This record gives sequence, structure tokens and C-alpha cells, in this order.
Amino acid sequence: MVKVGIVGGTGYTGVELLRLLVRHPRVNLLAITSRKEAGMPVADMFPNLRGHVDLVFSDPVQADLGTCDVVFFATPNGIAMQQARELLAAGVRVIDLAADFRIQDLAVWRQWYGMEHACPELVAQAVYGLPEVNRDKIRTAQLVANPGCYPTAVQLGFLPLLEAGVADTQYLIADAKSGVSGAGRKAENPFLFAEAADNFKAYAVSGHRHWPEISQQLAQFAGQPVGLTFVPHLTPLIRGILATLYVRVSPNVDVQALYESRYAQEPFVDVMPAAAHPETRSVRGSNMCRISWHRPQGGDTLVVLSVIDNLVKGAAGQAVQNMNIMFGLPETLGLEAPGLLP
Amino acid sequence: MVKVGIVGGTGYTGVELLRLLVRHPRVNLLAITSRKEAGMPVADMFPNLRGHVDLVFSDPVQADLGTCDVVFFATPNGIAMQQARELLAAGVRVIDLAADFRIQDLAVWRQWYGMEHACPELVAQAVYGLPEVNRDKIRTAQLVANPGCYPTAVQLGFLPLLEAGVADTQYLIADAKSGVSGAGRKAENPFLFAEAADNFKAYAVSGHRHWPEISQQLAQFAGQPVGLTFVPHLTPLIRGILATLYVRVSPNVDVQALYESRYAQEPFVDVMPAAAHPETRSVRGSNMCRISWHRPQGGDTLVVLSVIDNLVKGAAGQAVQNMNIMFGLPETLGLEAPGLLP
Amino acid sequence: MVKVGIVGGTGYTGVELLRLLVRHPRVNLLAITSRKEAGMPVADMFPNLRGHVDLVFSDPVQADLGTCDVVFFATPNGIAMQQARELLAAGVRVIDLAADFRIQDLAVWRQWYGMEHACPELVAQAVYGLPEVNRDKIRTAQLVANPGCYPTAVQLGFLPLLEAGVADTQYLIADAKSGVSGAGRKAENPFLFAEAADNFKAYAVSGHRHWPEISQQLAQFAGQPVGLTFVPHLTPLIRGILATLYVRVSPNVDVQALYESRYAQEPFVDVMPAAAHPETRSVRGSNMCRISWHRPQGGDTLVVLSVIDNLVKGAAGQAVQNMNIMFGLPETLGLEAPGLLP
Amino acid sequence: MVKVGIVGGTGYTGVELLRLLVRHPRVNLLAITSRKEAGMPVADMFPNLRGHVDLVFSDPVQADLGTCDVVFFATPNGIAMQQARELLAAGVRVIDLAADFRIQDLAVWRQWYGMEHACPELVAQAVYGLPEVNRDKIRTAQLVANPGCYPTAVQLGFLPLLEAGVADTQYLIADAKSGVSGAGRKAENPFLFAEAADNFKAYAVSGHRHWPEISQQLAQFAGQPVGLTFVPHLTPLIRGILATLYVRVSPNVDVQALYESRYAQEPFVDVMPAAAHPETRSVRGSNMCRISWHRPQGGDTLVVLSVIDNLVKGAAGQAVQNMNIMFGLPETLGLEAPGLLP
Repeated sequence: MVKVGIVGGTGYTGVELLRLLVRHPRVNLLAITSRKEAGMPVADMFPNLRGHVDLVFSDPVQADLGTCDVVFFATPNGIAMQQARELLAAGVRVIDLAADFRIQDLAVWRQWYGMEHACPELVAQAVYGLPEVNRDKIRTAQLVANPGCYPTAVQLGFLPLLEAGVADTQYLIADAKSGVSGAGRKAENPFLFAEAADNFKAYAVSGHRHWPEISQQLAQFAGQPVGLTFVPHLTPLIRGILATLYVRVSPNVDVQALYESRYAQEPFVDVMPAAAHPETRSVRGSNMCRISWHRPQGGDTLVVLSVIDNLVKGAAGQAVQNMNIMFGLPETLGLEAPGLLP
Repeated sequence: MVKVGIVGGTGYTGVELLRLLVRHPRVNLLAITSRKEAGMPVADMFPNLRGHVDLVFSDPVQADLGTCDVVFFATPNGIAMQQARELLAAGVRVIDLAADFRIQDLAVWRQWYGMEHACPELVAQAVYGLPEVNRDKIRTAQLVANPGCYPTAVQLGFLPLLEAGVADTQYLIADAKSGVSGAGRKAENPFLFAEAADNFKAYAVSGHRHWPEISQQLAQFAGQPVGLTFVPHLTPLIRGILATLYVRVSPNVDVQALYESRYAQEPFVDVMPAAAHPETRSVRGSNMCRISWHRPQGGDTLVVLSVIDNLVKGAAGQAVQNMNIMFGLPETLGLEAPGLLP
Repeated sequence: MVKVGIVGGTGYTGVELLRLLVRHPRVNLLAITSRKEAGMPVADMFPNLRGHVDLVFSDPVQADLGTCDVVFFATPNGIAMQQARELLAAGVRVIDLAADFRIQDLAVWRQWYGMEHACPELVAQAVYGLPEVNRDKIRTAQLVANPGCYPTAVQLGFLPLLEAGVADTQYLIADAKSGVSGAGRKAENPFLFAEAADNFKAYAVSGHRHWPEISQQLAQFAGQPVGLTFVPHLTPLIRGILATLYVRVSPNVDVQALYESRYAQEPFVDVMPAAAHPETRSVRGSNMCRISWHRPQGGDTLVVLSVIDNLVKGAAGQAVQNMNIMFGLPETLGLEAPGLLP
Repeated sequence: MVKVGIVGGTGYTGVELLRLLVRHPRVNLLAITSRKEAGMPVADMFPNLRGHVDLVFSDPVQADLGTCDVVFFATPNGIAMQQARELLAAGVRVIDLAADFRIQDLAVWRQWYGMEHACPELVAQAVYGLPEVNRDKIRTAQLVANPGCYPTAVQLGFLPLLEAGVADTQYLIADAKSGVSGAGRKAENPFLFAEAADNFKAYAVSGHRHWPEISQQLAQFAGQPVGLTFVPHLTPLIRGILATLYVRVSPNVDVQALYESRYAQEPFVDVMPAAAHPETRSVRGSNMCRISWHRPQGGDTLVVLSVIDNLVKGAAGQAVQNMNIMFGLPETLGLEAPGLLP
């Protein structure tokens, strides 16, 4: 059994981790911490877990996380980097669901996240936890930077084209739409039901923190810097991301074969038949990414559609997938449930 | 392994049965029929099942359901009664998710369902599949009438009070609210997104088919006819029922103890702490029924709140629970997942 | 032209007042105050008002409300009572959309609102602003207590029965469902989209502040104290209230005639045909209350359905209706638009 | 008074026309036809219109539309072209809200709409009813082709750039998101609440009927053929379209000045401040189009955001605007109401 701790369990990625881990046959959940809610039974905050979780939120200071095999950070940005060093020194492996270890260029990180990095030496050793790209490194990683939600959907959509070198990398467009849970469990006006329901808008069009993360990764796939325009939108879903990607490709590329071949061994990427339209609800609550593509009017602009559940493949599910890889477990363990439809 | 067939798998109870059964460790799914969609891969209609179900919808005439151990009818009312006799004669056990075998009084059935019953002799032998009431009979039943969604929520809410004889049975009120999937996968104007979203209404207030079903059952619990007013409402949820029950009780009843004691051994009824407010999302996708009660202003009118997922405990999940009981399996097998929240 | 000021215009009742008043042909909007947002153009906060409102939120201290003919308080409870005395002394008429002047019994008010009343002498002179009941008093009122949203829907539903003395007043039940805007523009977790969407729950079942307000009013209609059970529910609508009322009545009452006769002259109460089911969307954005009734199974329990838009007839629209009455304008002025459907 | 008839009033554009016209001070509504619902009071189908419309749906054969000044066709594609000739001959002006007269190239029309055109000679004389482009021609037009919903949002977003010749017209991308009412009042499974709620998907990516309409118009603005990729998405809104447009422009263009100058005299185009994010709810129920733009990372890819209410500026409201122009009325008459927010 893998002994697991969670730091910061009161947000949506926290409750989603719990939902997945309580049914995971090889996990022993030792502790979940929350400074603010210490002492409160977890199931009082998340009633779906009544009967499934007996744990009480524990004070981060008193929780003995050093006895865990792995600790998940489901915290805001800037927390994991304060605590990772000590845990790693104690032999605990760390999976950070926030952004502290995603960006390799520290100057870029500082610019977008507005703070100095607390442990720059760990950034270099952190493995970016996208299994479809870094599976082998994840196996032995001590510190995994779990990818962002938008970045997961966008990367998996572009990956085969960039690796194959068939795309015009200077004009990549990612028009992404996310459900409201992507903003976290934050009590702010724009995320109120009466503001976000029956409403649609773009946001952070001039610059979103996921832009440098996606750019870094796409450049790595392409072997050169890329030109990426990334526009996120808030859509009245609880969960789900659809990324609509626009990219120019050579006319004679067999796109379907390219995608099917690239993802043939991937348990959590489903290349749909040509001309399909993946729906976010088909992955609701599941760790699957579904992808399809179109070539409207037979032109050279390819449209790739990529859907995930932002809380599962975009956060907690991918973190569990990484844990499975790190501990030599079957990669799909605890992640086999189909999406909830309708 | 239990060999399972499903008749009529293109509606919401059908896809929900599939979602549960594909992960059930003791089920071998043999066939799923649809007259209209024969030949179509199930996963083409329900993309959440891609990679989980390889079956193709088969023609009802050609499907060899006689080799199944149990057949679920996820069909409109009036279908199961046409086919049950033959299956039962072949030794196949039958679970009907529609209403054909729920009402014992044939005249009442005819009045509310507008047709003659095709096999009245089977009605008497059918067991009403509410495990919390009829568990022993279900074990040996050949034919189970799976309860309606509203009836499940309402019965579990009233049951302890009526059995204990502490309620004024002449003035029972059930104000019930259901998500739109309760209407089935029916392409009719009132259930369109643009009609049902951001809208709330009561419907069928003068008489709904679940009224005789609930009345029959409550009378059985009480040992006498009851006076029930039942008002269903359509609410912009995909899934979920909340029943708000009003009943006058003797002032000195220890309601919490009564409910906790009655449901102490029930794996799928969760009596919440006093003064709690169960939410439908806490049971989204799960087979749980959560119940709490209030006594506003300390008066003699008790308010009982009961929530279920109409497609799970109100339909497919309860059917699987019944199957588990009928075949001597652990009652919770395949039904252990917590609700999807958020 | 009526010179109008608004105190506290950053909430939902504030923006709704603005939406109605900017199109009102006899209103001159002088000032709208907000301590927090002083200096901000109103249309920056509420982009639907771009091109309609040039006003800037002004500081409450500096705003010269004394020159207004009428001031609306769209503030939290406990604010209007601090400022009403001075305005009234200056000859300004006041309409309070909060609860400061709704409850005549000061002890009851203190108990439910948890504070001492700042101007008890004004409570007695305040007129409860339900035009269907108090139209004549409203005409000359200096201080109007605009009714709560639930109280409006519930009172209009019960009124004809109680005035006619045909109801059993000891067992009145009001099962009410409200859209999320009824909670105000408050950034709190339970009102986030990811918490309130696709979810249904009751709340404050043991006691809600609108219970004493409704009880006071129903007792007045009935000429005696009433026994009322009031259960509010949160439903995933932006706007809208449906109150489902249960009451026992004498079997030979002509309910349809009673309602039609009582409301024959009312411009904002629509008695629908027998057996109708009013929908909240039919009054979305409009000041109408629609009512219908049913007598299920011909019994003695009557079910009355009453719908309003909580922000219009339940708040800002009714306030404008009161203003029209107070200033001798046609009562429907500025309130004639049909609901927005779909 | 303008004497108005409506053909086909049972869909969403029909009820929206009614909502606008019943409050229009210069309109006399003579008849509204529906083959299927002839004899039914309009307000029975659309309860928001109770008290506002006394008309009964009349049989199209018997309705004497020849006495109208103008007839709106709120019908499916292919109906108006059957009846326009006769009405025009009788001196009645016609506004078609469907697509019969939008495409000038008859071969293109046939290809995308799958039928022969019934009156090709009228296509040439029809005026495309986008007032911001064709106001002068609309004034004297006998036959107006009211633009599609997506085409309205997309054209207004691209127009200033194309007219000014500062855009790379070979790579225009329009990623458009629409509420479900855009599909019309059609009882089909994909538009059911339980399918479309909490779900997001692209559709018709390989080819949508609005693509040739948009392409035709953009080419006209640019003075040359354009390369357009158009991807529509279904989003869980009742109303609203957001079009996110991607276009490469010369680096030294003053975009804000260009848009402000182009739309300075337009009553229904609101150019927002730089870096704004228009929301669909800001135009809910209103005839406004709001536009803003961004230049992410200061690159040469411009992102333009354009929002409308698909049923108002995208259909019925624009039709009323056209009528106002055709009959010499103030262009904003009957269209002045702000959007309904929240």
C-alpha cells in the first residue's frame, strides 16, 4: 500500500483527489491538512464523502507527513515550494498540483507568478508530469510538477503534429473553454452562479499564466520556439475543458494515422474517428482526453478538438496517474470509471 | 459471473445501467437490444462508454436473451409485460425498471397507465424492489418491479414514521423536485435546454402516475390507507431528486433515533445529523439516499428532506442493488463510488 | 419628473432598479451611492447599462440626497434605519428594499435580525408596500417597507383564501424555491456556480427571516394568528421564485372565482386558467405574479402555485410600483415589458 | 402605424419578434400565422405574453397578409421563397429571418441548403439587412434578407479591419460559441436539457451553413475573396453568442481608433475600452453588439471579441431595426431596453 498525504484539501482538486483515492485499491490515506479547517471532519465539508472518508482535516504543522510515501500538494501557487525541500529530504516523493515547478525558466516564472522562487534548485530536478510525454522520467521522479488543466488539453491536442514536424509552429492558436471549477473554490463575484450562469466570456486574453507553460512545452515538442496565441473562456459548466486548436499543416499529412499511431499505447487518450465532435460530458469525472480533428473546406488550416475534465485529467486524475507510474502500479488503477453521462 | 441482458438500452436508465455494469466485477454483459438502433455500436451513442463497451445494439427479435441469468427492462411502460412471461418460463429472472409490475391493483394500473395489463397473473408474484422494505422477498424473486424515482425518495423519507405509527397519515404532503433526466430521453419541447434551463415549474399537479405507486406503498407501511398529496416539480438539474415531506407527528417522538435505528443496517440510506440539509449533488452518480429532518418553530409539523440521484437509487443503481441481492452477491458490489462533487 | 436617489447600488436589487428606472419616462435619476465603489462609473460595474447610465457611484456622505423626491435603499438590513429619519425630516420619501421596516413587532424584529432597531418610532408609521393589500396607504406613505421576495409570492398566493375565511389557517404550508440571485451579490461559497449549479437543496428549514414577515401578514389577512410552515429551497436559476402552497379549504369553495374576483383590478397579478402550471420564466424580468391552483384527487388539500421574478415583483419592480403609486403616476409606468422567454 | 404580419410564429424568433413588437409604439400587429397551431391563442403557447397579445394563430391560407405594410418570415429555410413573390406583388414589404435571400450565388445556396431556389429573380433584388453596412439600401428595400446570428457577430467584429485593408484576409479564424436557442425550437435529442446542460462541444466543424454567408460578406468588405475558418460551438446558454476572431494585422494599426471611428454613429454597436472582455449577459434581451480587442503578447495576431444576443441582434431585434429603417422610424424605436443582468 502506498501511504499518501494531501496538503490543502479544501479546494476542488483536493476533494477530487479524495474521491479518486478513497476507491484506489493500493492507497492508504494517512492525512489531509488544512490550516483553516483543522479539526473538521472531511465529510462535513464534502458530503459526497460521508461513509467513505473518516479523516479529519489536520493542522499542517502537526501532521506527520514525513511518514508518507507521497504527498500531494493541492494548494495555491507558492505553497509547495516552501515545503517540498524538507519532504524530499525525508524521502517523501512529492506531486505538486499547483504551478510551482512547472516552469523551467525562473525569470519567466517570476514574471508570471509575481514572486521569487523559494527553491530554484528543485525546479531543475522536477519532472513535468504529463505521462504521454515524460512517462519514463516520472517513474523515478522524486518531485513531479502536475500540469495545468488548459496545458494538458492543449498539449495533447498539438503533440503529434509538433513532434512530427508537420505544423506551421509560428501561428498556433488555442481557443480554450473551461468550466467554472477551473477557477478553484474561490468566493469571488465573477464565479457566483448569478454571474456565471447563462453567461459566456473570454478572460485574461492579453495574458494568462498558462501561456508560458504551454509555450515551454510546445517548444520542446517542436524543437524550437513556437508562436502561440492562447485565449481562455469561462463557460457555464461545472467541469470540462474543450480546446479548439488551429494550426496550418502540410496538405498531404495523414492526420488520423498520425494521431492514432502516437496515442496507440496511451490508456487515457482516445483518438476519435475522423469528423467526430468530442463532448466535455463524455469525460465528466473520468481521466480520459478525447481528441478529433477536422479540415474545414479541405484547406490547410487544421482544427483539432481536445476535451478533458479539468479536475481529473486536468488535475487530480493526472496526479493519481503519475502516482501509479511512480510506484510501479498499473497506470489505470483507480481511474477506470467511465464518464458520468448524462 | 452473472450473465446479463438489457432490453431497451438507448434511454437514460439504459446508459446508466451500462455505466454501472461495465465496472461490476461479477457481471458478464451478453446483450443489449434496441429495435431502432440495432447494429449501432453502443459507444457511438454514448461516447462516455468508448473503451468500456464493445457491444452493438442487437435486434430484440434476434437477441438470445434466454441464455441470460437476468434481464433488465429499461423500456417504456408496457413493454416488459409483453415479454416477461416467456423469459421467466425460460428460467431468466427479470428486473423491470418501468412501471408494469409496480401496482398490485390492476384496476388502478389500468386507470393511470391507460392500457390493459398483458399478464395480470405475474403482477401478483412480482416483488416490489425496494430493498429497505422487501430485501428477503427480493432474494428469491423471479420478477422484480424496480420502484419509480419519486417513489423511492418519498418512501424512504416517510418509512420510519409510518412503520412506527407516529404520523398523522391523513395529511401527508410530498413536494418533490426532479432533474430533467427524470423525463427520460424524450425529444419534446418542454425538455429542451432553452425551455427547461433557468426555469422552474410544477407539473402534473392534478395527478401524476407516481401518486398511486407511492400511496400503495405508504398504505402498506402504515397498515391503513393514507391521504397523500404529491406535487412534482421540474428543476434545471440533469440528475437529482429532492423530496420535501410534511407530516404531523406526536410531539414527543425522538425522530433522529427512529431514523437512525430503522436505517442502521442499510448501506444506501444515510441519516444525516439533525438540522442538516442534504444536497442532490452529494449523491450525483451514487446509489445513496440521504435524509434529514427539521421541526420548524418546534411545532408538530415535521419536515423530512430526502435526496437521491433519480438515475441511480431512483432507477439503474437500485436495479443493480436488486440484482446483487437476487444473486447472493455483496449488496454494494459495483455501487461503491462516492458522488461526483462538484 | 420624480427626482430619485438610490443608496447602495452595487447589489442585484440596485442594478435591477437601475435597469427599470433608466427607461422610466417620469424619473430623473439624481444619484446612486456606494461607499466602496465611490468614483466608479455605474456602467463599468454593470455593462448592460453602458449607454443607458452616465452616473458615477457617489460617496454616501457627499451625495446630496436631500434634494430627491424619493430615495430607494437597496442596502443590507440595518442601513436604512440609520438614515431614514434625516431624509424623512427633509421631506424626502423613502422606500426601503431591505427588512428594516417590515416587522411591526420590534421584539420579533430584534430576535430574527439580531440587532436593536435604530428608529422604532418610524416602524409604526411605515407602510408595508404590497400594493394589492395596502394601495391606499401607500399613496400617502412617507416611508414604505418594500416586501421580501418570498413574502410577496407567498402572500399573493394565500391572500384570497385567507380574506375569504375559507382556509384552515392552522396548517398552512409554503414550500418555496428561489433562484440564486435571491441571496444577493454575496461572494460566498454556497453561491458559487460550481456549488449551486446542477444542485438542489433546502436551506434554513428550521427558521428563515421571512417566516415572521409572512406570518405577520397572513395573520392580518386572516384576522387571527396562523400556523405556517415555510421551507425555502435554493434552485439553479438566476431569477425566479415558485411558491407551492398547501392549505385545506372547504370543499364547496369556487376557488377560481374567488381568485379572479380578488385580483380583477390588479395589473400585476395574473390568475391563470384552472389546472395551469405557471413557470418562472414567464415572469423573467417582469413585474407580474402568476397564480394557479389545483385540487389533487379532488381532496380538501388545495395546492396553489405562485411565481414571481424575485428581483422584480420580489424587489425592484415592486419598489417602482410603489413609487408610481406614491407619486400619482400610472401604476404600471416603466413596468410594462413582458417577461424574457426563452 | 405600420401594419405588421408574422408568418410562422411558434419558434424562438417568432416569440422574440412578438416580445419586441407588442411594446413598439408604431406597430399594429395584424396577424401571426401557424399552420400547425391555427386557432390557438398566442399567449397560451408563450405565457410571458399573457396580457400583451390577444391574437390567435391564424391559418396561413386564410390570413390576409396582403393588407400588411410588412411581413416578417420567422419560418424554416425554404418557406419565404415560396410566398414572397405574391406579397411583394401586392406591395407588401418582406423581411425574411431565414436564409432564403442571404446568398447571392444561387449555386452556393443550392449546395448548402440542398434545394432549388423558388424565386431566383428575387435574390438579386434582396438587400442583406445588416444596417451597419447597408443602411441606405435597406431604406428603400422591398425585400430584406435578415442576417444569420453567427454572421452578424462575426461580420461586425471583422468589418473595420477588412474595410481598412489592414488584415491578412487569407487566414481569418472565427471561433464562435452560441446558446442553445440558436438551434431553434426543435425537439431533437442534442438540444435536450439533459444533453446540452453542463456540456460543451463544437459541431459542424467540417462545414456549417453560415460559412458561405460570412465568406460572401467578408469578401465584399475586403474587396476580394477571403480565407475563413469558422467553427461553431454549442454552449449551455439559453441566449447569446460570443465570437472570438483571430486575424493578423499590421503592427502599427491603431485598432481602437479604427473601431471607434467606424462605429461612432452606430446605435447598436458598442466598442468597449481596450482590453475589455464583453459578456453575453450584458446583451441578454437587447439589440446591442459589444466588441473589444486584444493583442496578446504584443504579437501580430489580433483577437477580437464580439457578443450579441442571437435572438435579438442575431434575429428578431435586427429585423425590427430593419423595419424601423424601412419605414422611416427612429432606428432604435422599440429596441431601447438594456440587457437583463443578472
